[in-house]
Amino acid sequence: METLKVIKIGGNIIDDSQALTSFLTQFAQLEGQKLLVHGGGKLATQLANQMNVPVNINNGRRITDAETLDIITMVYAGKINKNIVAQLQANSCNAIGFSGADGNTIVSKKRPIKHLDYGFVGDVKQVSTNTLKILLDNDITPIFCAITHDNKGQLLNTNADTIASELAIGFAKDFKVELYYCFEKKGVLKDVSDDNSVIKNINTQTYKTLITEGIITEGMLPKLNNCFHAINKKVNKICVGKSELLFSTNATYTTIKK
Amino acid sequence: METLKVIKIGGNIIDDSQALTSFLTQFAQLEGQKLLVHGGGKLATQLANQMNVPVNINNGRRITDAETLDIITMVYAGKINKNIVAQLQANSCNAIGFSGADGNTIVSKKRPIKHLDYGFVGDVKQVSTNTLKILLDNDITPIFCAITHDNKGQLLNTNADTIASELAIGFAKDFKVELYYCFEKKGVLKDVSDDNSVIKNINTQTYKTLITEGIITEGMLPKLNNCFHAINKKVNKICVGKSELLFSTNATYTTIKK
Repeated sequence: METLKVIKIGGNIIDDSQALTSFLTQFAQLEGQKLLVHGGGKLATQLANQMNVPVNINNGRRITDAETLDIITMVYAGKINKNIVAQLQANSCNAIGFSGADGNTIVSKKRPIKHLDYGFVGDVKQVSTNTLKILLDNDITPIFCAITHDNKGQLLNTNADTIASELAIGFAKDFKVELYYCFEKKGVLKDVSDDNSVIKNINTQTYKTLITEGIITEGMLPKLNNCFHAINKKVNKICVGKSELLFSTNATYTTIKK
Repeated sequence: METLKVIKIGGNIIDDSQALTSFLTQFAQLEGQKLLVHGGGKLATQLANQMNVPVNINNGRRITDAETLDIITMVYAGKINKNIVAQLQANSCNAIGFSGADGNTIVSKKRPIKHLDYGFVGDVKQVSTNTLKILLDNDITPIFCAITHDNKGQLLNTNADTIASELAIGFAKDFKVELYYCFEKKGVLKDVSDDNSVIKNINTQTYKTLITEGIITEGMLPKLNNCFHAINKKVNKICVGKSELLFSTNATYTTIKK
């Protein structure tokens, strides 16, 4: 089985054009088959402010009314995605931008209203890798933004970490999949105020303990839940840390194990 | 040789959500291989106004500074393109959205400054159909917005009619290509004030006469120049008219012949 790297990058890279250019130059040179998932960073909020559209974020999740969905579609699938693709082409990496609607790759279900109406937010229901596999086999690198669709014509805002883990799981039958969550920290920290207190390995057992001890806090919980979901669905290797971990052999980061 | 339909739609369909939905429902059912190119309509100007970004259109062409390029990338590649793709998926047409950067399909050159600086506007230099052909062979329909790139990392605003003719020409070695320009008129009119004065056939000879006689006016010249460029580069069939000509056997429209 060939190896496929599924790499998620977040706001710390997207929001900093120099960091993004530097990341993409190195990403383009990564050997083997690969797929990138990018978050949206602060640009959607900036555009909403410029357009006088109210921004409503609850517990880190964006409440997505119709106007906000338009904004994130424009920013994520338009501005960010196409600029990433153009920069990768300049670095001889043949990339194609994707939302979950493209190639019908990710179908999601509008989140039901319970305590809170998240609006046009979708939870992933089905991933189809057939078309993506054809592209990967032809040395093309798919670049995913965090937008999916319900297969009834409606686009939906979907968490980028979840898109990365679901794509990784979807490919696990065809590839030896490695899933990399790149963010602003070197890894999962034992002490949030100490950037060097990286926990090098977490497994299902130690994860439970870390939660009980209050070491893994709210911000990290959804990301790590995505990790353990993926590791239990045959994803081969999962790493969390700064993007340097992709390009350097002596970076410190967190590895998630079963 | 198989037939490929390259279809361009303009503002009269894009700007009217009912017309767009109706068009896409019928487009999804069109048999055989097909590719759609869409213009941007009025949405980019609307967003620019909402963002207080000045709009500068000279002779029907948008002067594209960096901020305007961001706006058209967001509107064309984001909002319009992804909503078209999602609606096609809902109609069981497996579509993937493209800019010229995606798959390195259309490389253009920033227009040199002569009398006027058009800004980030690109004239098509090279079309690569390899990746698109793989997708078409797998029953996937590419949906192109009017954005290209210079292969050095810069996105460029490019005329949608030109994108359609250049793609049609690019595919002419592999397919029997039919190029359809769908717009708000039934075809090229002998009398602009009479919607029923459609000229049913125009060839290179009668085209010259129509220009000399002042019957073909400025607005139609670029579109028809694209048509004659394509017909001289082995595109098999070119039609200009309302989108009905695609779905009805008794529509009136203009056919361009060599």
